Amino acid sequence: LFLKHTGGLPQPGLLFQIFSPPLVSPAAERLRYILGDDDEPPNPTLFTEMDTLQHDGEEMEWKESARWIKFEEKVEEGGERWSKPHVSTLSLHSLFELRTCLQTGTVLLDLDGYSLPQIIDDVIEKQIEDGLLKPELREKISYVLLRKHRHQTKKPIHRSLADIGKSVSSNTSECLGSNSYPVASLSHAQSRSMNDISDTPSTDQLKNKFIKKIPKDAEASNVLVGEVEFLEKPFVAFVRLLQATMLGGVTEVPVPTRFLFILLGPAGKAKSYNEIGRAIATLMVDDLFSDVAYKARDREDLIAGIDEFLDEVIVLPPGEWDPNIRIEPPKKVPSAEKRKSVFSLNEVGQMNGTAGGAGAGSGGGGSDDGEMFCGGLYLDIKRKLPWFPSDFYEGFHIQSISAILFIYLGCITNAITFGGLLGDATDNYQGVMESFLGTAMAGSMFCLFAGQPLIILSSTGPILIFEKLLFDFSKGNGIDYMEFRLWIGLHSALQCLILVATDASFIIKYITRFTEEGFSTLISFIFIYDAIKKMIGAFKYYPINSDFKPDYVTMYKCECVAPDPAGELIQGTVAPREWCMLPWSEFWGNTALDWTQLSKKECLKYGGSLVGKSCKFVPDLALMSFILFFGTYSMTLTLKKFKFSRYFPTKLRKLISDFSIFMSILMFVGLDVLFGLNTPKLQVPTDFKPTRVDRGWFVFPFGKNPWWVYLASALPALLVTILIFMDQQITAVIVNRKEHKLRKAAGYHLDLFWVGILMAVCSFMGLPWYVAATVISIAHIDSLKMETETSAPGEQPQFLGVREQRVTGIIVFVLTGISVFLAPILKYIPMPVLYGVFLYMGVASLNGIQFWDRCKLFLMPAKHQPDYVFLRHVPLRRIHLFTLVQIVCLAVLWILKSTVAAIIFPVMILALILVRRLLDFVFSQHDLAWIDNIIPEKEKKKEDDKKKKKKGNKGDSSSDEEPKPVSTFTASTHFLPQFPVPSVIKIPMEPLPPAPQNGGPHCLSRK
Amino acid sequence: LFLKHTGGLPQPGLLFQIFSPPLVSPAAERLRYILGDDDEPPNPTLFTEMDTLQHDGEEMEWKESARWIKFEEKVEEGGERWSKPHVSTLSLHSLFELRTCLQTGTVLLDLDGYSLPQIIDDVIEKQIEDGLLKPELREKISYVLLRKHRHQTKKPIHRSLADIGKSVSSNTSECLGSNSYPVASLSHAQSRSMNDISDTPSTDQLKNKFIKKIPKDAEASNVLVGEVEFLEKPFVAFVRLLQATMLGGVTEVPVPTRFLFILLGPAGKAKSYNEIGRAIATLMVDDLFSDVAYKARDREDLIAGIDEFLDEVIVLPPGEWDPNIRIEPPKKVPSAEKRKSVFSLNEVGQMNGTAGGAGAGSGGGGSDDGEMFCGGLYLDIKRKLPWFPSDFYEGFHIQSISAILFIYLGCITNAITFGGLLGDATDNYQGVMESFLGTAMAGSMFCLFAGQPLIILSSTGPILIFEKLLFDFSKGNGIDYMEFRLWIGLHSALQCLILVATDASFIIKYITRFTEEGFSTLISFIFIYDAIKKMIGAFKYYPINSDFKPDYVTMYKCECVAPDPAGELIQGTVAPREWCMLPWSEFWGNTALDWTQLSKKECLKYGGSLVGKSCKFVPDLALMSFILFFGTYSMTLTLKKFKFSRYFPTKLRKLISDFSIFMSILMFVGLDVLFGLNTPKLQVPTDFKPTRVDRGWFVFPFGKNPWWVYLASALPALLVTILIFMDQQITAVIVNRKEHKLRKAAGYHLDLFWVGILMAVCSFMGLPWYVAATVISIAHIDSLKMETETSAPGEQPQFLGVREQRVTGIIVFVLTGISVFLAPILKYIPMPVLYGVFLYMGVASLNGIQFWDRCKLFLMPAKHQPDYVFLRHVPLRRIHLFTLVQIVCLAVLWILKSTVAAIIFPVMILALILVRRLLDFVFSQHDLAWIDNIIPEKEKKKEDDKKKKKKGNKGDSSSDEEPKPVSTFTASTHFLPQFPVPSVIKIPMEPLPPAPQNGGPHCLSRK
Repeated sequence: LFLKHTGGLPQPGLLFQIFSPPLVSPAAERLRYILGDDDEPPNPTLFTEMDTLQHDGEEMEWKESARWIKFEEKVEEGGERWSKPHVSTLSLHSLFELRTCLQTGTVLLDLDGYSLPQIIDDVIEKQIEDGLLKPELREKISYVLLRKHRHQTKKPIHRSLADIGKSVSSNTSECLGSNSYPVASLSHAQSRSMNDISDTPSTDQLKNKFIKKIPKDAEASNVLVGEVEFLEKPFVAFVRLLQATMLGGVTEVPVPTRFLFILLGPAGKAKSYNEIGRAIATLMVDDLFSDVAYKARDREDLIAGIDEFLDEVIVLPPGEWDPNIRIEPPKKVPSAEKRKSVFSLNEVGQMNGTAGGAGAGSGGGGSDDGEMFCGGLYLDIKRKLPWFPSDFYEGFHIQSISAILFIYLGCITNAITFGGLLGDATDNYQGVMESFLGTAMAGSMFCLFAGQPLIILSSTGPILIFEKLLFDFSKGNGIDYMEFRLWIGLHSALQCLILVATDASFIIKYITRFTEEGFSTLISFIFIYDAIKKMIGAFKYYPINSDFKPDYVTMYKCECVAPDPAGELIQGTVAPREWCMLPWSEFWGNTALDWTQLSKKECLKYGGSLVGKSCKFVPDLALMSFILFFGTYSMTLTLKKFKFSRYFPTKLRKLISDFSIFMSILMFVGLDVLFGLNTPKLQVPTDFKPTRVDRGWFVFPFGKNPWWVYLASALPALLVTILIFMDQQITAVIVNRKEHKLRKAAGYHLDLFWVGILMAVCSFMGLPWYVAATVISIAHIDSLKMETETSAPGEQPQFLGVREQRVTGIIVFVLTGISVFLAPILKYIPMPVLYGVFLYMGVASLNGIQFWDRCKLFLMPAKHQPDYVFLRHVPLRRIHLFTLVQIVCLAVLWILKSTVAAIIFPVMILALILVRRLLDFVFSQHDLAWIDNIIPEKEKKKEDDKKKKKKGNKGDSSSDEEPKPVSTFTASTHFLPQFPVPSVIKIPMEPLPPAPQNGGPHCLSRK
Repeated sequence: LFLKHTGGLPQPGLLFQIFSPPLVSPAAERLRYILGDDDEPPNPTLFTEMDTLQHDGEEMEWKESARWIKFEEKVEEGGERWSKPHVSTLSLHSLFELRTCLQTGTVLLDLDGYSLPQIIDDVIEKQIEDGLLKPELREKISYVLLRKHRHQTKKPIHRSLADIGKSVSSNTSECLGSNSYPVASLSHAQSRSMNDISDTPSTDQLKNKFIKKIPKDAEASNVLVGEVEFLEKPFVAFVRLLQATMLGGVTEVPVPTRFLFILLGPAGKAKSYNEIGRAIATLMVDDLFSDVAYKARDREDLIAGIDEFLDEVIVLPPGEWDPNIRIEPPKKVPSAEKRKSVFSLNEVGQMNGTAGGAGAGSGGGGSDDGEMFCGGLYLDIKRKLPWFPSDFYEGFHIQSISAILFIYLGCITNAITFGGLLGDATDNYQGVMESFLGTAMAGSMFCLFAGQPLIILSSTGPILIFEKLLFDFSKGNGIDYMEFRLWIGLHSALQCLILVATDASFIIKYITRFTEEGFSTLISFIFIYDAIKKMIGAFKYYPINSDFKPDYVTMYKCECVAPDPAGELIQGTVAPREWCMLPWSEFWGNTALDWTQLSKKECLKYGGSLVGKSCKFVPDLALMSFILFFGTYSMTLTLKKFKFSRYFPTKLRKLISDFSIFMSILMFVGLDVLFGLNTPKLQVPTDFKPTRVDRGWFVFPFGKNPWWVYLASALPALLVTILIFMDQQITAVIVNRKEHKLRKAAGYHLDLFWVGILMAVCSFMGLPWYVAATVISIAHIDSLKMETETSAPGEQPQFLGVREQRVTGIIVFVLTGISVFLAPILKYIPMPVLYGVFLYMGVASLNGIQFWDRCKLFLMPAKHQPDYVFLRHVPLRRIHLFTLVQIVCLAVLWILKSTVAAIIFPVMILALILVRRLLDFVFSQHDLAWIDNIIPEKEKKKEDDKKKKKKGNKGDSSSDEEPKPVSTFTASTHFLPQFPVPSVIKIPMEPLPPAPQNGGPHCLSRK
């Protein structure tokens, strides 16, 4: 047991020593000294390669056995491949052994070496000098260290040839590299000038694609371990070069070497050496230790570095974890900043400042809430203007194409749907054509100039209902609809501008997660409901003849029968009698109607009636529609998930995932074409003219209505304004969520300004009014999400933010505008496919909504519930209560929406905010902070820290928060003032914990 | 840093000491002494509960903060719930601190305590005696330790009431339990007689359902940590009671307490105390340490136990792992046997023996290969007979019901399909009725008496082809088919019996993974192919009229037109002229055929012709069939996976998963009924009589064919025998795979014996021949898999084996037999639904086939490939080569199967074995051992160990296997002979590694 070797058992009584206020250990003092200076540029990233010595009779070579950028990759001996990157699991042994190695071996810091032979010469010289090595071994050591290095990339040539003809008893051929030496036998006596190492990078090195994974300025650290027969005691050396130098073929990639660790030992303990090699390699890629290694002044600094490492190490009990399991790299690794900051020379105040800065940095520099309450339009413009050029050049990316296709299809489907409905509601005063034109114009203007170009404008349900009521009212009271509408629009636009001028957007302060998620869930449900309703509609529109018996196909027919004044027609007979009376020639040549040749519509038009069993039914279309609808939805869902599958290279998978909607649409349009069934297709207008011939493209404001209508229209306008304002601002809040990590901030006032302006324009042109569409905007954001291209193997891609630009939006709406010319292509798209896309949009926008996650909790037994942060801090019954309140609110809204009361829908959303305010009296602020907080979960921890800290400082001495973990950093900033010398290195039994354990926001234990 | 406290820096030169042969440390000696005796009964499982002291002003209480059975469950303070079970991550600190605690504190072993007050008295007495505690603190300590214990199960009542009306500024209400003390204020001076602890278990304890998770004989260890104001140095005590005693409400559940660890310390370091508490709790649930704790003679034994624990600990570097991540319990935890065995007193040879035994034990006591090569029928019977009763009573389980339903549906579908095809092929000499009767009889006999009742008999494709060829041959050559067939069957049955008698089943030795997986993949493909082919058939059988235009419904009709001798009929006209000439009354009253009223079939029968656009088409049925087919398949797949979802309690999920097929079938039968479409339905014969009227239920062997036919039929019989033998034995090998962990062993000879007997019987009765059906048998096994009911929270369910019994099989076939009476129910099941089940069966049986996994590797980039064991040991290109050979073989077999050459199909499977033998010359034995080995992967490691060991002993001194990890245990057994004293405790730099790192089979480093 290593304890024996590190000095035996601790003395009794020590326990009490360590309870006294901590003294700074010499090791901590050392680290403080070398790491204290923050101003230096950061050290280069270290790439570590471990080579082990392979024997083959007399021959030896160094074979790469593992490498590290951040995580370990091991060479699978048999598989001749790299393992998956994994977390290095070490044994305590190897770390203690390494510590001993560094204490006893040769440590050469800032050696001025230019080539491997010279460096090795220097090391051996030093060893002999210190009496660690017998001079007669000089040549042998040197010979061994200068053997050739074989890297994993380089396949052993002799094997691939020998493989095929390998005999059954191939036991011996398993010896790697048995014939790979070109020179047959070299005696040990031959001098080191016979080294296998060249000074220039080999072609293998240069060809190695792995270099792409290594940062440009990286330096290498080489670990060489092996056993040799002639040594009796180990030969250990740690070398840091003054300048990073290319040491020929030592490293797999042409990266200059800065560090060299050599461990040669007597035969028989290769496994141990190997573990020590892994330990130093893991240390070298540790952020803090590599800093120490770069800055170490002597041996003791390095050992202090190891001690610090041991101090922070995480220990897994042997009975609960199988060390054979390779641990996958975590989603997020802890930054070394915390550990480093302990050794920083800066004072507490500054450190707090730094921490705050870092926090904001990691938050992605989101929108600063402060400004938008008080800044208004001017500030919005001032804030957005500098980004304007980048809004264009940042849009050019392959991802944008998929986003454009996706959103374009969403937009035209929406335009057609709402256009059709509006046309029905307003007797074609506003039809599909107006809808297209309005969408294109309003959308592109908004994307070009608004504060948040990621928002997509569209017609929405409440507006549709409003228009319908308005039209009926006008018609019933003899008021000219278009003129009346124009005035309402103008009033409403004015009211919007007043809201902009008065900075009324402050109300978004009250739009918490409760309101926001309630609203977006509602809109998602409407999407899903509508998609399914339309699908079910297909079954009504194309009724299926369920009584059809294939054998009795002769019984099914549908005939057009001429109106028969005599009424003597016998139903079910094949042909009316009269026709037969006519001679055949006359019958055909007759100018009279040939009733049998009439289509269903024509027949009814000319007053005929349809007789027969098959008249009511339309075969196949309903089922085909269902297949197209459901197929598009599920294929999109499957392809989206394909990103996480194991097949194909990452880039291809990402491409497939990005274009999933496009591919599904193509696939099912293809299927539809293949079957050739007459499914309902997307039909866009092909002529650029108003749907109604009696209206033009401009509505004249005066003349048709009495003067008081111009004023009275201010009242309905108020309703429209509330509707527009709520719809617009809630969607904007959702889009500007901190989770989306937007860099370019929001522009609530600017957005509303443009919505107002566009409203006026649309009113004048007699086009529908437009407002932010929640679901499509979320889909837009989702399709533009960026992730890091992983650099170090094993590192998880991090969500970087959204591609914030105006290009996709503008192109989408320009395309919408010219869709009139795209009709020949678009007419191939069946409507059920588009409803499938709608369903997908609705379902996808439910994802990531915490409310939805909380709803699912109802169905999960407590022990299976995911480890949501809020579950750790709020009792389940409180969470359920909160969710229930939301469900009730949604149900009420849904009922409202479905009735004529829909017109007061926007007012009800205001009521939602009120309900949320009332909840303040039911739930504690602590609970609400966790459940109903717009701050993303990661930052929550920080927030919580601060809160707890404040609370702690208030002198609340209740100890119930005690058992929670304390982050080292927070703890030190808090404890520092108590001691004259900052407690930089933690000492057992001290109140500063070594490492935070197992999650939860960090809180402070009381003094 | 703790190193300082454990004795400072190691002395220089130590490195060389530790390279010398290891000496046994005193700690190891101690462990050897106390753990050496293997004969004692195992110690009870320990349940550990950690309570922390909570202050609320003057009031104090002990609050449960975590518990352990195997893994840690923490109380989420805010969430008032248990966390998910997770691996305890400790810090090195806390472990070293704990070590110090045990060194300095009071350790009372085998204290004879009957109540908590008495135990505490004893502990305090001892502390005062040893001068560790000032006598004046006696009362205070005692008071603190006797405070009430509050467990997580008990909700604080005041909160739930106060919650609702909580005000906005609820900061203060966060203090837990502020008003929960019934007695308002107790001064410290009050004596320990005022304790809150009762001696009898409380109702809360008794009501706690958690007790179910704790093994019956478990004992508790209680950890109490807390900070108190009045102490200046910590009060530490470790108590082991002589007898486990119920200490009232101390433990959450009524489990008697055996161990007690108390740590009270000065205020301000609660976090540290907490971590120490977690460390001792984790140690107490460690298998080895708990043994040590039970057997420890003194303090030093405990410390030796901690040292051993530290020695085996797994270390994660702080830069690569975030300690806040809770680590999910691994699928399989390492057994403590390895660690324990090091300390066993037994000698090396015995230890090897033990290891072997353990290996076999973990293998689930599968079939012993040795016996079946030489034992034959007698041994099979002898082996199976003792299991016969259990084969029945073990069948009564809810799971059996789902298995029966699943397999029953598979069987009748198969019977109908093959029955129909056989009827076609043999002119109804063997039809659906014969198929049902034969399946029922052969299947139930086989399940009742065979060696492996999990095998399901069925008709198979090759036999169908054989019958077809035979019938055609007989017809062409004037031979009586039934009699000829009888003789072939009799010959074949005889040949089978000869094979049984000569123990010919030895050939299965050559059926390796290569053959086995090739065969079962082929059969799976045939299932999938057939299901899809039948589905596509529906589109041909029910053609879709893709030109149909709903508006022109009047144009579509199909009329029956009477044969028109004059030929003057004008196609496309509505009615032939002649009819019109007849007066209507006459037309109706006429006894002549009313052509318009005829069905399609009748029309064609009477020589009429069908005229019209809709004659060729059948609406809706094809698409509906597709929806039913695909819906059944995907719903089954989804429901199967539902077991792994988070919703609903585990039992319900398991039920849903088990009954997934049944539920999908119900669902889609319901859908079909709802639509009422005339989809093709399952039609079983309702009358018990041969399909052909001219045959009876017995075939007379003589009289119809010339005498030489009786002898000549031996030749075709040989082909049938090979076919039956291969089909039967390969399926048996697949069913008896070691992965299935069958306890009741195989019975290859007995199986074949019954197949032979049944063949003779079927031949006499003129029924089809039956042989093991691969896919259905695999489905049978899959539906009967057992898993452990998890006991300790966090432990993963382990696959236990298959419910081996005869009940399911027998019931399935009895049901098949009486299906004739079930026809009124079965007629509701549409065929497409059953094809969906077939597709599912085919796809499901591909899962877990290594060949299929290897095929998928072609599509995966190397870095995304799963961590299969064989990938670590065989180069990818060799694996790909092997897979390609298999693919080519399968392709050849597939082509053969599709042509008339299908009759030599069984011979080709023999060829597959030959190909595999040839591969021995292309691949090394090492590679083949990894890729083509019937030993399951887990055992492979062990096998590999042994192989490597042998190789190592042969004196192969190549060191290329060196860097691989060595298992501690294997290493010690190997190294032991070299040292006089077994090296039981590993010492740094020694060749024995502390713990195997990162997977791979363990191999030995050379001496």
